[in-house]
Amino acid sequence: MDSAERDELMKVCHELAEEFAGRADDYDRHSKFPVENFAQIKDNNLLAIMIPKEYGGWGADFLTYTKALEVLATGDSATALAYNMHNIMVGSIAEVPEAAGDDKRASAANDFRAWVYDEVVKHKKVFASATSEPGIGAHVSHLKTVYDRTDDGFIVNGVKSFVSMGGYADYYVVAAKAARSKSKTPAVSFLIVDRDAEGVTMKNIWDVLGMRSTSTNPVTFKDVLVPKSRLFLASEGLALYKIAREPHWLVGGYIGVYLGIMSATFDFLIDYMQNKNKPGSETPLSQDPVVQHQTGQLYSELQSARLATYHAARLVDTARGSDEANAAVHHAKYLVSEGGPKMTAMAIRMCGATTLARRFPLERLYRDSRCGALMPASSDDCLSYIGKAAYGTNLKNPIETYW
Amino acid sequence: MDSAERDELMKVCHELAEEFAGRADDYDRHSKFPVENFAQIKDNNLLAIMIPKEYGGWGADFLTYTKALEVLATGDSATALAYNMHNIMVGSIAEVPEAAGDDKRASAANDFRAWVYDEVVKHKKVFASATSEPGIGAHVSHLKTVYDRTDDGFIVNGVKSFVSMGGYADYYVVAAKAARSKSKTPAVSFLIVDRDAEGVTMKNIWDVLGMRSTSTNPVTFKDVLVPKSRLFLASEGLALYKIAREPHWLVGGYIGVYLGIMSATFDFLIDYMQNKNKPGSETPLSQDPVVQHQTGQLYSELQSARLATYHAARLVDTARGSDEANAAVHHAKYLVSEGGPKMTAMAIRMCGATTLARRFPLERLYRDSRCGALMPASSDDCLSYIGKAAYGTNLKNPIETYW
Amino acid sequence: MDSAERDELMKVCHELAEEFAGRADDYDRHSKFPVENFAQIKDNNLLAIMIPKEYGGWGADFLTYTKALEVLATGDSATALAYNMHNIMVGSIAEVPEAAGDDKRASAANDFRAWVYDEVVKHKKVFASATSEPGIGAHVSHLKTVYDRTDDGFIVNGVKSFVSMGGYADYYVVAAKAARSKSKTPAVSFLIVDRDAEGVTMKNIWDVLGMRSTSTNPVTFKDVLVPKSRLFLASEGLALYKIAREPHWLVGGYIGVYLGIMSATFDFLIDYMQNKNKPGSETPLSQDPVVQHQTGQLYSELQSARLATYHAARLVDTARGSDEANAAVHHAKYLVSEGGPKMTAMAIRMCGATTLARRFPLERLYRDSRCGALMPASSDDCLSYIGKAAYGTNLKNPIETYW
Amino acid sequence: MDSAERDELMKVCHELAEEFAGRADDYDRHSKFPVENFAQIKDNNLLAIMIPKEYGGWGADFLTYTKALEVLATGDSATALAYNMHNIMVGSIAEVPEAAGDDKRASAANDFRAWVYDEVVKHKKVFASATSEPGIGAHVSHLKTVYDRTDDGFIVNGVKSFVSMGGYADYYVVAAKAARSKSKTPAVSFLIVDRDAEGVTMKNIWDVLGMRSTSTNPVTFKDVLVPKSRLFLASEGLALYKIAREPHWLVGGYIGVYLGIMSATFDFLIDYMQNKNKPGSETPLSQDPVVQHQTGQLYSELQSARLATYHAARLVDTARGSDEANAAVHHAKYLVSEGGPKMTAMAIRMCGATTLARRFPLERLYRDSRCGALMPASSDDCLSYIGKAAYGTNLKNPIETYW
Repeated sequence: MDSAERDELMKVCHELAEEFAGRADDYDRHSKFPVENFAQIKDNNLLAIMIPKEYGGWGADFLTYTKALEVLATGDSATALAYNMHNIMVGSIAEVPEAAGDDKRASAANDFRAWVYDEVVKHKKVFASATSEPGIGAHVSHLKTVYDRTDDGFIVNGVKSFVSMGGYADYYVVAAKAARSKSKTPAVSFLIVDRDAEGVTMKNIWDVLGMRSTSTNPVTFKDVLVPKSRLFLASEGLALYKIAREPHWLVGGYIGVYLGIMSATFDFLIDYMQNKNKPGSETPLSQDPVVQHQTGQLYSELQSARLATYHAARLVDTARGSDEANAAVHHAKYLVSEGGPKMTAMAIRMCGATTLARRFPLERLYRDSRCGALMPASSDDCLSYIGKAAYGTNLKNPIETYW
Repeated sequence: MDSAERDELMKVCHELAEEFAGRADDYDRHSKFPVENFAQIKDNNLLAIMIPKEYGGWGADFLTYTKALEVLATGDSATALAYNMHNIMVGSIAEVPEAAGDDKRASAANDFRAWVYDEVVKHKKVFASATSEPGIGAHVSHLKTVYDRTDDGFIVNGVKSFVSMGGYADYYVVAAKAARSKSKTPAVSFLIVDRDAEGVTMKNIWDVLGMRSTSTNPVTFKDVLVPKSRLFLASEGLALYKIAREPHWLVGGYIGVYLGIMSATFDFLIDYMQNKNKPGSETPLSQDPVVQHQTGQLYSELQSARLATYHAARLVDTARGSDEANAAVHHAKYLVSEGGPKMTAMAIRMCGATTLARRFPLERLYRDSRCGALMPASSDDCLSYIGKAAYGTNLKNPIETYW
Repeated sequence: MDSAERDELMKVCHELAEEFAGRADDYDRHSKFPVENFAQIKDNNLLAIMIPKEYGGWGADFLTYTKALEVLATGDSATALAYNMHNIMVGSIAEVPEAAGDDKRASAANDFRAWVYDEVVKHKKVFASATSEPGIGAHVSHLKTVYDRTDDGFIVNGVKSFVSMGGYADYYVVAAKAARSKSKTPAVSFLIVDRDAEGVTMKNIWDVLGMRSTSTNPVTFKDVLVPKSRLFLASEGLALYKIAREPHWLVGGYIGVYLGIMSATFDFLIDYMQNKNKPGSETPLSQDPVVQHQTGQLYSELQSARLATYHAARLVDTARGSDEANAAVHHAKYLVSEGGPKMTAMAIRMCGATTLARRFPLERLYRDSRCGALMPASSDDCLSYIGKAAYGTNLKNPIETYW
Repeated sequence: MDSAERDELMKVCHELAEEFAGRADDYDRHSKFPVENFAQIKDNNLLAIMIPKEYGGWGADFLTYTKALEVLATGDSATALAYNMHNIMVGSIAEVPEAAGDDKRASAANDFRAWVYDEVVKHKKVFASATSEPGIGAHVSHLKTVYDRTDDGFIVNGVKSFVSMGGYADYYVVAAKAARSKSKTPAVSFLIVDRDAEGVTMKNIWDVLGMRSTSTNPVTFKDVLVPKSRLFLASEGLALYKIAREPHWLVGGYIGVYLGIMSATFDFLIDYMQNKNKPGSETPLSQDPVVQHQTGQLYSELQSARLATYHAARLVDTARGSDEANAAVHHAKYLVSEGGPKMTAMAIRMCGATTLARRFPLERLYRDSRCGALMPASSDDCLSYIGKAAYGTNLKNPIETYW
């Protein structure tokens, strides 16, 4: 991706963000999936943001992707969050080099990749991640969803709890454990399930504090047949291995989203304080010494979160899966997850009661921001991860991590 | 109030809190005023909580009142908040000794008091506070609402921005400035306006982050006639003087509400952690060392807020209007206003994604808690107040404060 | 203790504090034990502060004691800290009711008490606590110091690591474990050892960050003979039991000291800011809005620490050993231990470079304040304790606590 | 500077840091200037770290310089701090392009530069900054030190309060105001004064909390003659202008020092926790879940400070004096100044009482770290600066800043 393409991508994202902003309240209020926003995402070929240019995509690197997500989130964080769930799948594939050799497995892997690219680029298909389960969250080493091998493929059974874009996405990327495995750490694989496959049912119960328009719902898989060709990169057992060694997508995919929330909040604050006078005065609040001092504090937190986020994303590009990159991803995830609620709470405190109203974005940002800590890795899992890393623990061993 | 009466009052509040809790989500969701809750408040004579026993009330002291509010708020903080707005009026009257002597003014003051007690005890009438205005908030020295004196009373003109129980309360207690006053600090008086008086109109636009069922709406007063007998304690110019010297009602009335939010949040957390196991384990999360450590941190914050709140309320009872009491009220107001968002944010972080759902109270507590900082005195006004107090500033001079 | 006696005690403490303040820098700088301060403590009968009036003491309750300590610490926190080590012993005895009946054990206990009172009141003897050991700190369930029973008493062997007033105190109160015990939780007893007994040696190596004049040194006990009559309250096995059930002395004795540090710091700040002008101006810094706001923040923290400390001390007086009192002691200990470094760090930041100099007390307060967290219970043990308490853990079981 | 030279420089700094560490306690304890350390600095040509290679220096860029300082500070932060004071002068010259043209002023400026380079490279002369004054700190717009023009140069009168390396440095770089100037913002110039010039006297009174070996003392200038050739870059009035427009040296020179303190503290913590067992156990504390979680928190703060510091330094190299660079410098200065005391306080809390002893570096780091906030720009000036910057204030106007 050259710098002109990067600028072009950012321009598109800024334009979309502005349009998303206009619709955000309505989607949020009614907990509706942002179908119009996704139509624009499709129109701008953004479903293929991670797909290499030679296959018809934008070919974004991880840093550019993160910045794109940040911009989109300033318009509507829920849309950006849902959009990321699709890119987790596509980006995870795109970053794996094409399989060399012409053995069966290599060619199956390449066929899989080709199919995904085709579905995304030509058919504008959306993939959703189906990982978390009731009682265990995203701790995939405790998965209860299982699959049995058949001659033609797999039979999947289980319940997934927080499937974003449930009912909208065309495919679910289901993390499941091989049934009847004798090994101690049984194979956890990703299987791509058609939304309309027999045995797939979604319950529309998403009615929550924030990120209300993501349609994050439970999906049940009852004896669902999955063709062999829909095994992620044609490899069984890849999931846990990949998640533990290269957590950037699962943990770090959405750091741009939560940074975007902080960023939008700060921009709102600046604008509001410049345009609101002190009671009984013609001086804007932005000239109040206490307001300036507090704004400096918030800027400091925003800037720290931004530097950590870009640093992590850059390391994903240059040293993917290294200890340094993985620690950086968890550090950034922690900062944006906890920085958001702090910053939105402070902005409301500073701006005053008027900005509680739904006609301002602040209250939605306050609600949306609190969801970051709950998505894997949780804020406390992040802290434990980077603490352990500092003591030299081998965190590529899934047992040592929170998975 | 003896200790048996106190226990009886607390028992009633606990019972009501439980019922309020069952209805809280519905009122919140639809931003509806909690009419059923107020019916129960009336049935239990709680509108007269501050009225002396000899006049048919409960005769609560400020500490008991604060604890009652805390308990009610654990059920539904919005109801408790609205309820406090009524008690600001009644409590402010009850704490002033009856006027001695038989001059005209003394007897007018006593008549006013008798009328209020009668309206509350016999007719179950509700009084709402109408202080804040667009652009100035509750900074009453900048009021734009004015009144003109006529032979029979007053003519009021102005707009009030955040009138809780707007449309439900029977009377509005309107802070207004004498028009055409020549003095430098013009008389600010409280006038009691009938909800249905000619010229009174309310706009139902309350659609906000939290405290959604309080019906806190703008009310316009256009050439509204107010009889002489409806001047607060028959005294013009009392408002600013009283607010600056004895801010406990305006600033400290609702500290119990926000303490109740913290309290309810902590109880929820304890219960949840005792009943939720770690992923893939039979051990409850309450036995996790990090969870215990974080819970200790939250307990520390809750307990600090509670000690400060009770301390302030006790001082209002024993040294009302003293510098010490006033500083204590601002300290408590600050702690509960900022402690709430911190505690609810942390509880969600610890409990995880499941508790974002509206079927749990946590997300509502997160939203409601953020409103405390915005009600006078704002968190930053509180800090400036206690900072100035520490430097010996005379804060009974309204000019030195945030009013 | 009636209120006139309380006032008298406070007056004495204020006078001493002023004198201590004048000597604090010298003692601190040279890490010398404050012999002159202790001479004044003796002259004012303060060694007997916890001894009942009928036995010649002041008969202070725990709250009054805590306030006395706070005042003394504003003059010199190291002196106050050392002084507390003596009162742990005396106060622990004074709070136990005299043994009833005339059996041998009851009379031995009463003889012990009478001896201690006599040593303190008549002979001005000082007792020092010898609990901590290398590698285990104050975690007494892991003690390595042991005692063997002989016909006449006990033989003690072991090393104690942080014995305050080492070399100055007349007696060491040594926590030791019965050797060759078969029970699972072996008896931990307190034995009173004469400073000059054969086999007792102290190494003078105390050269540390703060609390430099306490002479907190290692003391070795090598085959030291202790007469039977010097067994604490004539009871073996009392130590661990008492520490776990009634931790107020060991954990909460010195909360007044660390509160005193916060208090002295705040007073210094107020005074300094009122007398220092902004650069190039005649306006004192106390009128700067940011300074006022920050001062309000510090006041809030000081006041929270103070309320928690007095609340805990009051509960020790009214409900000693209750779950509520024990939690309150740990809460207060945590707040004053962590509040001190925060407040002193902030005061230096606000006052500026001039106040780094040793001629001001601020730098010593900064250093002394950091020692609180390290004395049992550590700040993190406090948090875990109150966290566990919130989950209903039985903390009277030593295994559940940090001991 | 190419990457081999950078590596070579870092290697030298690491070696020196190790040697500095061995002497740090002695210098600190006796408040002695680290003469041996400076001898090594001279031996390694580090006085010329900022001088271009073609003139005999290392030619370091600002980022490399900052990293070098960080490394040196891990050995002895006071030495690194003093060393920076020299580089402020030399670096400020080195970054200004040589004067073009052959007019008198250009050639005088080039002569000045040549003289400085020569003094440093050939004669190993040390320059000290003399900016702050009693009562005004470093707020140079309120300077009281003045100079009068004579035919041959200038006569300087005034008192400077915090001159690091006072008595050791060969030259003082004195900020002084033109006397009898009629303009509203009088010229503030830098004059280079010989340590041994007549009328220069230093008082050795430095006896403070931290940075004890920097010999930061008051220096009085009484009718001191300064030759014309010693006017900084041959330009009057440059000082205030340069400080306000390009504050990176005065504000940001030492950010590497305070980052180094955080870094050394974290490394100590990691090592200590890996080698100390829990009481009564064979498990190192580094495996305790609460310790890991807290370590994660500290890592997060260290990493945020580091990213901000390197980011700021990089911007000084690529966009010197830009709004972005200046804000970044203040952001970094704030983070390292406040991060240090927080991190050292927490490390002591976690490591426990043993580490209070002077034989460990932790207590010195705790003391040294607190000095950062007091050096210009103070932590609160930094926050106000970046707050104002966010509101678009023109901070290149000295009146808008804290100078």
